[in-house]
Parts: sequence; structure tokens; C-alpha cells
Amino acid sequence: MGAFLACDWGTTHLRAWVVEAGGAVRAGRTFPLGVARLQPGEAPTRLRDEVRPALGAEALPAVLCGMIGSNLGWIQVPYLDCPVDAAGFAAAMHPAPDSEPPAWIAPGLRGPGPTAAPEVLRGEETQVFGWLAQDPARTIGTRLLCLPGTHAKWVLVEDGAVVRFVTAMTGELFEVLSRHSVLRNDASVDDWQAFAAGVEAAGDGGGLAARLFSARSRVVGAGAPAAETASYLSGLLIGAEIASVPRLLNAAAPGPIALIGEPSLCGWYSKAIEQVGLTALTYDGGEAVLAGLIALNAYRIA
Amino acid sequence: MGAFLACDWGTTHLRAWVVEAGGAVRAGRTFPLGVARLQPGEAPTRLRDEVRPALGAEALPAVLCGMIGSNLGWIQVPYLDCPVDAAGFAAAMHPAPDSEPPAWIAPGLRGPGPTAAPEVLRGEETQVFGWLAQDPARTIGTRLLCLPGTHAKWVLVEDGAVVRFVTAMTGELFEVLSRHSVLRNDASVDDWQAFAAGVEAAGDGGGLAARLFSARSRVVGAGAPAAETASYLSGLLIGAEIASVPRLLNAAAPGPIALIGEPSLCGWYSKAIEQVGLTALTYDGGEAVLAGLIALNAYRIA
Repeated sequence: MGAFLACDWGTTHLRAWVVEAGGAVRAGRTFPLGVARLQPGEAPTRLRDEVRPALGAEALPAVLCGMIGSNLGWIQVPYLDCPVDAAGFAAAMHPAPDSEPPAWIAPGLRGPGPTAAPEVLRGEETQVFGWLAQDPARTIGTRLLCLPGTHAKWVLVEDGAVVRFVTAMTGELFEVLSRHSVLRNDASVDDWQAFAAGVEAAGDGGGLAARLFSARSRVVGAGAPAAETASYLSGLLIGAEIASVPRLLNAAAPGPIALIGEPSLCGWYSKAIEQVGLTALTYDGGEAVLAGLIALNAYRIA
Repeated sequence: MGAFLACDWGTTHLRAWVVEAGGAVRAGRTFPLGVARLQPGEAPTRLRDEVRPALGAEALPAVLCGMIGSNLGWIQVPYLDCPVDAAGFAAAMHPAPDSEPPAWIAPGLRGPGPTAAPEVLRGEETQVFGWLAQDPARTIGTRLLCLPGTHAKWVLVEDGAVVRFVTAMTGELFEVLSRHSVLRNDASVDDWQAFAAGVEAAGDGGGLAARLFSARSRVVGAGAPAAETASYLSGLLIGAEIASVPRLLNAAAPGPIALIGEPSLCGWYSKAIEQVGLTALTYDGGEAVLAGLIALNAYRIA
């Protein structure tokens, strides 16, 4: 396998690593070049003039995943329909136009969702394929993965293939409610006890619009400190997600839920998952996406 | 019964009516004097110097309901615990300090909710008591009422008493998601077909954070027009409320759901209720609160 430039190019940031021929990572860096901050058509020049020189990667082929493959990015790479495994996914990578040295852009995935609309994702699949590549035993049997974030993704994997997934807008609901609603708060989630009360209040996850009001009524109707609101609200939203989303996937967790993401956020998810009697194992999202890009590159040149 | 000044004094507006001794309404007017717009301590002078002269009501006693009885209003009148009927509610009205002629401020209600936190409301109870007063037959048996709005209230009434209620933050969720999230839209709900698709997508109301994402994925993953997003999102949120909130109240609708509120919003609720196989009857919220204030005044001087 050859040396290459691995890029997780998302909405807000671009994370890039130089991977040597033997698989060792020589350098890695995050750039404030998310596709939401780019002018149309700007992606190739930013990669060539800023990212490559900063990492000494002027001559390397590149593999890119994430929103860079959307209509906001470099070129729109169509969604692949589930089920999809890593080999099939790698084969659908699209050569980037106007790139020398060459770059390949990963597609997104599309699958059936809990409504008539399809589910879509772009970028998280590479974390999933990376997590699978980190331990080949994971490609056997059924696995339930949760990738927390602004739009949390729950992914069901069977024998190494993504068969379906669901997106929960938990992080974004927390943001907009914390900033713009009657549940306004300082967004600092730091109180384990209030968080646990929120998870408890989530119940079976039904009636969320009603359960949410308890974040207000516990303060005005029962004297709870307003300073607890961020932690309680976070627990309520995460608790409702955990209680209801696996059901939407028709996925009884066959073993521990694999939590892949930012370690501190995964810690809160892990706490909530344990509180409802399930188990979780946590994996670093950055390491997973890098492993995924390395796996895609290996398939590309195989 | 004597002539009086009836005031529904809420967060954003004050609606006032002069009611003659025989019960006829002589004048009515809305003032931009909601408690959220008042300086602390300002309520009595605004009532005396602006509202009373505008309606020729300088000499009348007044009955006030709504957020004017909260800590943002004139004086904080404690919540009454359910069950509460109209007579008990009227007896708990609080004489307003520093008011000549006299004014009485209604309390709010508190009851058990779907979480460990109590449920609270302030103002909607007067619409409920007004609706009951409009037809004494309504005080017999079990009734399920829905008052749509920023914070929709679902109220269970047994033999004329409010026994419990639930608040759904449906209107506020629509607002903050339409303005500040990836589901950003022009907030014009005008497409019956997209609305109905949203109601359908709400399913049993569980997994709301996941179902919400379909408002995005149907556009990016299935080519639905972005212009439908407001209507679809409204249907999804209202559909989820209707599917899940009555269950939180342990209330199988014993007959038609009584929808009390702004006629156009009630029209959308009515459409969604019919779509899921239930029935609703719609009543004007302004008429209901006025009838409630008249009933409270009658109890006061009885």
C-alpha cells in the first residue's frame, strides 16, 4: 500500500493526515476549511495551496470523505444504497476533477428510514468502516453502533455491511433549545445528577415535545435550580434517543453498543446507556475515521 | 352580577373587555402590554393609565388571568394543585395590591406530569373553565381538551374539574427549528399534502429526534421540494403530539377532542386529528377566555 493524504472533510472542519506506505501516520492537522466555509469551486485550490504544503503532502494521492462529496463540496458524489460493505464503498469512490496529484472522494450512504423518506449520511460511514477494519472479528455477526454528534447516527451492521441507519437530531435540538427557547441555558453539561434525572424523565422516549417542558416546569413548579437545566435537558434528549432509536432500527442490541465519537460526549451517552440497563464500549471517532480512510485507500490500490 | 373589566394578560399581549352587568360585552381591545414587555412594578400603572381609559373602564372592578399572576407580572399568585373546579379556582383569586378600583388575579394550576416534575399552566385554565361555562352539559363526565399554541396544553376534565394536564412544546419546537436549524424554512404552513405526509411520518410519536431528520432527508435524499419543509415539519410535530400526548395523560379520548384556540391553528390540528382516525370539535380561544373571566367574576360576587 502506498503513502497517501487522508482527509475527513466535513461541514465545519477538515482533518488531514499523512499516512506512510507502511500505514504509520507521519503528520496530522485540523484546518478551519469545512465546506460550509468554502466559496463554490474553492475546494481544489484550498487543498493544493494550504493543506498539502502544510503537511508536506504536495505529491501524494488523497482520499477524501465527508461533506466534501455533497453539493456544498467539491463535486456531488451520489449516495450508495444500503447494504454496503467497505469493498463496495471503496469501489464507488469518485475521482476528483481538477486534481493533480489525484484525489478520490467517497460517496455517502442512503437507506430505508423510520418514515417514507430515505435516511442519508455522509462521512460517518468511513468511521464505521474504520471501526470494522480495526478488528476483523467485528465483521462477523450483527453490530449496533452509535455515533453521537449534532446529528447522531445509529448504524446497524451485519457481517461487515451497513444494512440500515437512523439519524437523531439530538445535538442540534440541544443547541437550538439551549440558545433560542424558553429552556435557554448556558449549555454547560456538568451535573451528573441532573443529567440522570433527565434520562429518567425521557421514559420510553415517546411524547418528547411534552417531556421537554419538564425542563422548565421542574424549575418554576418545583424549585429545581435553573443552573441544572443544561445537564437535565442533555440527559432528557440523549435518554429519549437511546430509548427510542434502536426500536426504529428494529435492532435489539445484540451485544454492547459501540459508541464512536468525541470522548467527552461519548461519556455522557455511555452514562445514559448504562442507566437504562444496556452496555456500551467507547471508541475514538478520530482514530476510527483515519482507520477508515486507510482501509479505503488499501481497497483503492488493491 | 356587576359590570367589570375582564383581562387576559399574557406574555406578549393583554386582551381586555368591558362586560356589562347583564353579561353583554360593551368593548374589547388588545394592547401590546404582555408581561414580557413590562418593567418590574409597572403593571398597575399601565392598567390604570392606559387600559382603563381606553375602554372607559376607570371605575370598574377587574378580573385578570394569565402570566400577570407570575413572577414576571403584578404579583406571584401560587399555583393551585389539581383537581380544581371553577368555584375552587375563583375562590383562590388574589386581590391585586395597589389597585383602586380593586382587581383580582387568577392563580395558575399545577398537577402531576409525565415526569417527576409537576406540570404547570397559567391562563389556559380560564379558557377551560370558560368552555365548561358555555354549556353546563360539559361539566358532566370526562372531557379531553387541546389548546394549541407555543406551548400546547392537553387537559383532562372530569365532572367539571381539571384533574391533570400535559404541556407539549410543539409550537416552540416549530419556531426554533424553522429559524435556527438545518430544517430552516420560511415557516409558511400552506401545503395540505406535505402536512399530511408529516403527520404520517410522525408514526406513534416515538423517536421524534429521528423522525425530524426526515424533513431534511426527504429533500436531499429523495428530491422533495424544499418549499414543502414548513408544512411537512408542522405536520410531523403536530402528528407526534397527537399520537403521544393523550397516552401520557392516560386519556383515551372518550368523545371528540375539544380544540380551543386560534381558528387557523386549530384547523391544522383538526386535520391531523382526523387523519389518525379521531374526531375534534373546534372552539374559539378568545371567546372561551372571555366566558371564563365572566364565570370567575360571577363566582367572585356570588
